[in-house]
Parts: sequence; C-alpha cells; structure tokens
Amino acid sequence: MPENSTPRERILESALDAFVERGYEEVETSQIARDARVSRGTLLFHFPSRERIILSLMDRFADSVEKKLLTALAARGKGILRVESALNACIEAFSQHRRQTKLLLMPAAALGAAFLNKQNEIKERFARHIQAFLDEAISMQEIPAVDTEVVAAAWMGAIDNLIMNWIRSGEPGMDRIRSALVPMLLHSVQYRAEDCARLAP
Amino acid sequence: MPENSTPRERILESALDAFVERGYEEVETSQIARDARVSRGTLLFHFPSRERIILSLMDRFADSVEKKLLTALAARGKGILRVESALNACIEAFSQHRRQTKLLLMPAAALGAAFLNKQNEIKERFARHIQAFLDEAISMQEIPAVDTEVVAAAWMGAIDNLIMNWIRSGEPGMDRIRSALVPMLLHSVQYRAEDCARLAP
Repeated sequence: MPENSTPRERILESALDAFVERGYEEVETSQIARDARVSRGTLLFHFPSRERIILSLMDRFADSVEKKLLTALAARGKGILRVESALNACIEAFSQHRRQTKLLLMPAAALGAAFLNKQNEIKERFARHIQAFLDEAISMQEIPAVDTEVVAAAWMGAIDNLIMNWIRSGEPGMDRIRSALVPMLLHSVQYRAEDCARLAP
Repeated sequence: MPENSTPRERILESALDAFVERGYEEVETSQIARDARVSRGTLLFHFPSRERIILSLMDRFADSVEKKLLTALAARGKGILRVESALNACIEAFSQHRRQTKLLLMPAAALGAAFLNKQNEIKERFARHIQAFLDEAISMQEIPAVDTEVVAAAWMGAIDNLIMNWIRSGEPGMDRIRSALVPMLLHSVQYRAEDCARLAP
C-alpha cells in the first residue's frame, strides 16, 4: 500500500486483505487498526463498526466498476453498440478482482438487511445508467421506444445473475457470458438484426 | 385450515400466519406448536429448528409456483409463445400471495447463508425449466441456436430482479412488467419479429 495513502484508505485496504484471508466473521477491528497503522480511535472515527467497513468496501468496489463503465462508454462516442465495451469493462472489473468480488458480494450471513439494502442500492444505481443509455438509443432512433425502466431492470437482473453464478461456481465462464449476452441484450431491444449479426459468436 | 390437514401442514400454515403477522424474529416455535395444535415434540420431529420451517415454506411456495408454471406450459401445447402464459402464471402466483412472497423472500437478516443457498437453489431450478423450454424452441426451429444455459440464467435474473423490485417498492407494476418483458424476452432470442409485433403493448 502506498506510504502516502490516507488513514481511511489504509483501513479499507487492511480490512479487505484481512477479510479475504480469514473471513469477515473472524476479523476484529483492533487487528485491522494494527495492520493499517492507525489508532483504534482513528478507526472508530472513520468506521463506527465493522459493518460500516464492509459496506464502504462494497461502495468502493461499485464506484470503481462504475468508473470503468462510464470511461468505456465515453471512449466510444455514442450509440448502442457501446453496450459491448461497457459490459466488457464490467466483466473485466469482476474478473480482475474475483476474490474481492466474492468477499464483497457474499457476507450476507453476517450483515443481513444492511448488506441486502446496499446490494439493492448498487443494483439500482447501475440500472439507472442502463436506463439512460437505452433512453439515448431511443432518442437517436437506434431502437424503437420501449419501457426503459422495465428493460433496464431486466438487463441489470440478467447481468447480475450471470455474474453471481460465475462467482459462485465459475460457470458459465466469462467468455460464454460475453458471446451470448451481448447479442441477446441487443436483440432484446430490437437493435437492427443485420448489425447484431456481426456480433454473434 | 382444514380439520383433516396433517400435522406438518398445520405447522407450516401456523408458522406462515405467525411470521407474516409478527415477523420471523419474534415468533417462538412453542407458539407455532400451540397454534398448530401439535406437541412441541411433534414440531421438533418435523422441523428441528425454526430455520427449517422457513426454508420449508420457501420450498413449498417455489413448488406451488413451479406447478402453476408447468400447468400453464402444458395447457398450451408447444411453442415459444407459451412464455407469455408461463410468465403470467408466475406473476399471478406472486400477486396473489404478495405478503407471503415478501415474507419468504426477505428473512435474509435472520438466516444468512442458508437463506441465500435456498434462494439460489430455487432460481437454478427455474432456470433449468427455462433452459429446457428454450432448447425445445430451438429444436422446433422457432428460434436460432443459442447458448441456452447463459440465456436461461439471463432470463431468470431479469424476471427475478423485476419481481424483487416490485415486492420491495411496488414499482414498476405487474402490468408494465407484463407488457414490456414478454416481447423483450422473445426478441432476445430472435423470435420472428412479425409474431413479436402482435404481442407489443
């Protein structure tokens, strides 16, 4: 970890390492404070509870995936075919951080409602990006008008379920997800079939 | 509750009532036994823990939705357009049992991993039905060949996310889900557009 990182960042990094290595339930905040070279008071100032640490780690990971997604969207100008690079950016974020992903998505047993609420909040945030993207595609007449709130929630659920299955079992693999999901999502909003065709696996 | 129901059924019915009225955390198994007119020993024989009761309620609800789904599929012969009646059957099952649905899908705080495992098991069961349905549509040449395992998991995730959002917030409503989701799913597997058109809202 960089020497000049803030106490808050050091706490989050140390907590992530400790949770991944030993499991959320097994890690005491006092140990996280020691690893992060901060006092217990400093840790409590930033995070009044261990739960707040893991919820912040979820936020931080969601922020990082969101940033990659928005960067990928911005880099390719306009148009619905950007869904491919946007999805690839998300998939890569999860592939590169598989252990962290697993940790961050799975501690429901310890956290219960707070964890589920955070998970829903993150899913809704991403669904709003998808909806804006679909609204733009409609206004550019790339696809016919459609109930974008419903379609965005459907896309979000589809992506989430595939990624969660992959985290749990490794199957279907990311290559299969990529080859089948992108054309399927484009077809689902009646994107011109001749353009879909060149995306088919 | 019918007088001739079995002790196991009476326990499940009493538990469902009690959980819905007072919340899972607030209900003691001794109270469930009293309501069901069984001894505590009988209750423990059928359900060694309160957790086992709620997991059985989840199974029972999933069984009932599955039965409605398979009945709807069987009643309409063959063909992919049955997705509409299958989805309607599922939506109706959730609409008619909204309080139970909410109770059965939400006790993660108390149950943690056991609850999530059960939820995944149920989602995978339904995904396998969807996959079989898609495989049939491909073999009947209604739709082009596609990675049906990925597409089934995507459909399952889409349906699940919309239903969960609706349970949590009431929005988007079932009518919007129905009008937007069925054509979207059919388009996603390139079902002939001219036949999709008559399904559009």
